Amino acid sequence: MSEFALIDRLRARVLARGDVTLGIGDDAALLQVPPGHELAVTSDTLVAGVHFPLDTGVADLGWKALAVNLSDLAAMGAAPAWCTLALTLPAADADWLDAFLDGFLELAEQHQVQLVGGDTTRGPLSVCVTAHGLVPAGTALRRDGARAGDEIWVTGTLGDAAGALAQHLAGGACSAKLRYRLDRPTPRVDTGLVLRGRATAAIDVSDGLLADLGHVLAASGVGARLDLGRLPTSRTLADHFDERRRWELQLGGGDDYELCFTAPPQAALGIEQALAGFDASAAVIGHVVAGHGIVCTTPDGDAYAPPARGYDHFAGS
Amino acid sequence: MSEFALIDRLRARVLARGDVTLGIGDDAALLQVPPGHELAVTSDTLVAGVHFPLDTGVADLGWKALAVNLSDLAAMGAAPAWCTLALTLPAADADWLDAFLDGFLELAEQHQVQLVGGDTTRGPLSVCVTAHGLVPAGTALRRDGARAGDEIWVTGTLGDAAGALAQHLAGGACSAKLRYRLDRPTPRVDTGLVLRGRATAAIDVSDGLLADLGHVLAASGVGARLDLGRLPTSRTLADHFDERRRWELQLGGGDDYELCFTAPPQAALGIEQALAGFDASAAVIGHVVAGHGIVCTTPDGDAYAPPARGYDHFAGS
Repeated sequence: MSEFALIDRLRARVLARGDVTLGIGDDAALLQVPPGHELAVTSDTLVAGVHFPLDTGVADLGWKALAVNLSDLAAMGAAPAWCTLALTLPAADADWLDAFLDGFLELAEQHQVQLVGGDTTRGPLSVCVTAHGLVPAGTALRRDGARAGDEIWVTGTLGDAAGALAQHLAGGACSAKLRYRLDRPTPRVDTGLVLRGRATAAIDVSDGLLADLGHVLAASGVGARLDLGRLPTSRTLADHFDERRRWELQLGGGDDYELCFTAPPQAALGIEQALAGFDASAAVIGHVVAGHGIVCTTPDGDAYAPPARGYDHFAGS
Repeated sequence: MSEFALIDRLRARVLARGDVTLGIGDDAALLQVPPGHELAVTSDTLVAGVHFPLDTGVADLGWKALAVNLSDLAAMGAAPAWCTLALTLPAADADWLDAFLDGFLELAEQHQVQLVGGDTTRGPLSVCVTAHGLVPAGTALRRDGARAGDEIWVTGTLGDAAGALAQHLAGGACSAKLRYRLDRPTPRVDTGLVLRGRATAAIDVSDGLLADLGHVLAASGVGARLDLGRLPTSRTLADHFDERRRWELQLGGGDDYELCFTAPPQAALGIEQALAGFDASAAVIGHVVAGHGIVCTTPDGDAYAPPARGYDHFAGS
């Protein structure tokens, strides 16, 4: 299959949005940003063996490559609109590409995201996606708005993806439920949209809660207290890991792609009601304080020293 | 150096545009598209050993990674505005990154392009850039507007980059002038801007003239006649290659990043006058005809059969 056959194969499978003047097939895509809106842009690359285990299913990889980018848009409160896909493959393989697109386009369709361009090249497997979202001007969720007194929230449950990775690395049996969370993360797009005007800051948890919350706190010039007993935990994670190990995974493990956000206490009821509207969940896990750093407390009221910092792709290099 | 130190290093060196609400450092950049404009988006990846010789200078690689994307915007008649950079590196190396940014940001500054986000990851060296440009709605240059009777133009000179690559692959002495054209292509941004309203179709020559012109002809449903005696040729290329070899390089070789465009004959004077305003050159090399395919004629009036098609990253796989 030639590069051009690959491109035709891509083009035949994408949905069409009304705000796309020109999609795949020219030197660039032409896109219409509606008046009064800002464009949110994010790029993330997945490299084989670095960002996903080598045994990851091809369709799962397609899903995840888009999901991690939509998660960034969700953390800005932006509505996803378009994406580009730069795919580097060891060899052109129609079956591989079809499987990859199965996962990629399934998620794209869920969020009405149109693939509008990109690139296919030969080389070691990696996937670079750039995602574009739209947000009414001035309403995007940023990292620098957290204020002392705000509550700290996270969506969904934490630690499942890190639990799957820990099981994978240990070489033992893997929980299918945990592995699914690692391979098919859910970008919290709808939650991001309802947080506009309610949250003071937001980030997605890709590198680990402490690391990512740390970015929000640093940007906002504040600190935090976390109550470990309130970390939202799946039953599966609790079944497979004892409390201490679980906290490590939940605080230091990445790849959950939940949102962590801050909001004043008076916004709590509105947030809960809005999330209930589409069966989304979020829980308060602590609060923002003056100063800096993160203090964690166990359910017994003891201080807890986190064992590790978040994932850093260049750590140890 | 950690991933976050890398990001800080990037952030400290970029220029600031007034239409960037939020640049590097949050989950996504926030950008303002002016009213009445469309957004042009293109992504291109460079992989070591595939898109550039392994001995390519690091600063040259930085330049080229942005140049190939700005060239796509030029081919749309879009004014470059912003870009993201997804960099995959075997190891974090501050000296390498600084050298890369020397080239990347030198070109970015020439065109007032702001680097607004991206990603740094560990893996085999590759560089994925997504570039964003702005174009008044409805005025972009597309591939599908060529009409029988139009003249076919190319900017600058053709074949220099392919000549450098041929010398490199042959293992002999390389002309520094040709190699510079391979390593530091000039995206024809200003030319693209003046072609709006004048050209009927445009593309940049990245895969070879026959291949890229072929895309324009296929999209427009027409054919072409080319006069090989009119191919614009640098003195250096003519010094190093005989006529037959030169035509091969000029027709089949990629990486020139000149623009190939079509325009009705009555637009020729206006195009020449506009280009003269900033010392740019372009030459008519043939014309569009009804039908399909490309017929090439030598200066002696003989038919010429091109030896090879353009570069295909998956050819032979």
